[in-house]
Amino acid sequence: MQLLRRPVSALDEAAMARARARQDSLTKPLRSLGVLEDLSVKVAGITGNPTPTIVDKVIITMAGDHGVAVEGVSAYPREVTAQMIYNFLNGGAGINVLARHIGARVVIVDMGVAADLAHDRLISRKIAYGTANMSTGPAMTREDAVRTIEAGIEVLELEAEKGMDIVGIGDMGIGNTTASSAIAATLTGAAVRAVTGTGTGIRSDVFDHKVQVIEAAIRNNEPKKDDPIDVLAKVGGFEFGGMAGVILAAASRRIPVVIDGFISTAAALIACALEPAVKEYLIAAHLSAEHGHRVVLDYLGLKPLLALDMRLGEGTGAALGISLVEAACKILNQMATFAEAGVADKADAHPPTN
Amino acid sequence: MQLLRRPVSALDEAAMARARARQDSLTKPLRSLGVLEDLSVKVAGITGNPTPTIVDKVIITMAGDHGVAVEGVSAYPREVTAQMIYNFLNGGAGINVLARHIGARVVIVDMGVAADLAHDRLISRKIAYGTANMSTGPAMTREDAVRTIEAGIEVLELEAEKGMDIVGIGDMGIGNTTASSAIAATLTGAAVRAVTGTGTGIRSDVFDHKVQVIEAAIRNNEPKKDDPIDVLAKVGGFEFGGMAGVILAAASRRIPVVIDGFISTAAALIACALEPAVKEYLIAAHLSAEHGHRVVLDYLGLKPLLALDMRLGEGTGAALGISLVEAACKILNQMATFAEAGVADKADAHPPTN
Repeated sequence: MQLLRRPVSALDEAAMARARARQDSLTKPLRSLGVLEDLSVKVAGITGNPTPTIVDKVIITMAGDHGVAVEGVSAYPREVTAQMIYNFLNGGAGINVLARHIGARVVIVDMGVAADLAHDRLISRKIAYGTANMSTGPAMTREDAVRTIEAGIEVLELEAEKGMDIVGIGDMGIGNTTASSAIAATLTGAAVRAVTGTGTGIRSDVFDHKVQVIEAAIRNNEPKKDDPIDVLAKVGGFEFGGMAGVILAAASRRIPVVIDGFISTAAALIACALEPAVKEYLIAAHLSAEHGHRVVLDYLGLKPLLALDMRLGEGTGAALGISLVEAACKILNQMATFAEAGVADKADAHPPTN
Repeated sequence: MQLLRRPVSALDEAAMARARARQDSLTKPLRSLGVLEDLSVKVAGITGNPTPTIVDKVIITMAGDHGVAVEGVSAYPREVTAQMIYNFLNGGAGINVLARHIGARVVIVDMGVAADLAHDRLISRKIAYGTANMSTGPAMTREDAVRTIEAGIEVLELEAEKGMDIVGIGDMGIGNTTASSAIAATLTGAAVRAVTGTGTGIRSDVFDHKVQVIEAAIRNNEPKKDDPIDVLAKVGGFEFGGMAGVILAAASRRIPVVIDGFISTAAALIACALEPAVKEYLIAAHLSAEHGHRVVLDYLGLKPLLALDMRLGEGTGAALGISLVEAACKILNQMATFAEAGVADKADAHPPTN
């Protein structure tokens, strides 16, 4: 991945082995904290630290508008993207509430909203005022697709300098489940209908239309499955490239990345296609109610931590997932061992290995 | 339920309707926070407050020893119950770590550990030094069974006076999955093998023996399915009665109760058999890896929030569940409405109702 300053390394197996050994020495039946134990071992491998701590938590929510919205694929008007940006910046959105709940800071990035936005806490990396309508031609140029990824890398690098033990990614953009489905169908090979859902809540007749629009986008653009930049340019969106850049840069810095729902997972598909090594740095927070998310998670081999029938986006699922990762690392760090606590281990805890 | 000072009321439907109406006005697609929305509405109904807040969080972990442990049904020696009590009181156990993570206080209750325990933060309601061996006769007398429930009610009442917006229950007791399986088989009518698991981690030959011990306990005691006190006395344990008392008293005070894994859910079975109205006050935190938990949750009609392959007990799953309930109530209270944020609602958000 040429765009990155540092390469993405493999997980640190030695740190993982030490974390696993410590988990097995803690005052609980062997493996009795299940996924929490596995998560702590994974974070040890990602960070290279056998006893990692999660203190600085960041959620990066990237927004963009979509030309394809003119096709009537969403239940909401396109103006909502910009309106929600201000809701984020004023602290009134779902992601703000859940980020405060877990003690994370929220970074809002305008990757290409179709309005002039001004706010001292808004990071602007606007590529254009929304993408072009992908149902009739490419959403953006190849050059702009590369620029979105570079912008995402830049944002992550800047934010990581302020302190970042973990990053969650989120999205905002009316029309972006349509782009997600097109990306997912192209990169996983699944049928469009198998990876298309009702987004923010469209009716069933609109759903059929949405499927046709996505099929037209793929037919008219012929995105190349083995060229993720081509897929991003033709049927993606600015926030997808931004999120892919964040993922790539975080992985190159050995920072765990918690992905959110269908849209951020579609961005992860692009990041993994560009650099397969990043997959090990991803943690899937939840299974979205959006049809198609499961297909993409399965394709990436990721098992979601939660299944709460959520489909809001913004990074809301990622926030809840980050709290579980933090809890997992606290278990690894703070629990007493059998020896420390003077608790008898089970009789066959250390059987002969012959 | 004669033991309670106040009766257990039905949920407050008016508070629930107001909470649901507020959820539907918040800046997110309708129902897009899924289970979090439902949880907030349930807590509104439990508390009678249409905008409930969760601030004072308490986990009550009740411990007891089991005479049936002499039958070799556990991977750990019985001494571990007492040793773990000190681990709890010293802050080194899993429940301490997760309670700190969510900002809850932990209350440890000795309901009948087979050792003299002394610590200024330990609440002692010791009925006896462990139950009798239920495989050959009743675990305790009927009078003692009633005393365990009274003790649980008392503990909840005292702790609630210190401030309690939500309570999670947890357990400690070598041998208590054996009692749980006996309670579950008796009260749900399931086969013993269908509700028996490997507990803290026994081998498959020990598992077969455990099933036989439970079958013998039921055969020799003939616990009466329609008499939950009889079931508790014959094949239960002191901590089960204590947890059932906590559940009953919390429900009578309109405090939501988050149950943990297989053992606390078996206690909930007893509480619900004594007073069916308490069921609406229960929130199932997680699906335990312990075989049989799903059967009992299904019987109670409870859907777990998490499925993380955990089987530690102590209230560890309940702690994670409480954090989700708190997040749900924050969403209800803190998110901006469409009107407040100046965000356009979807075109058909308020369709004609004809």
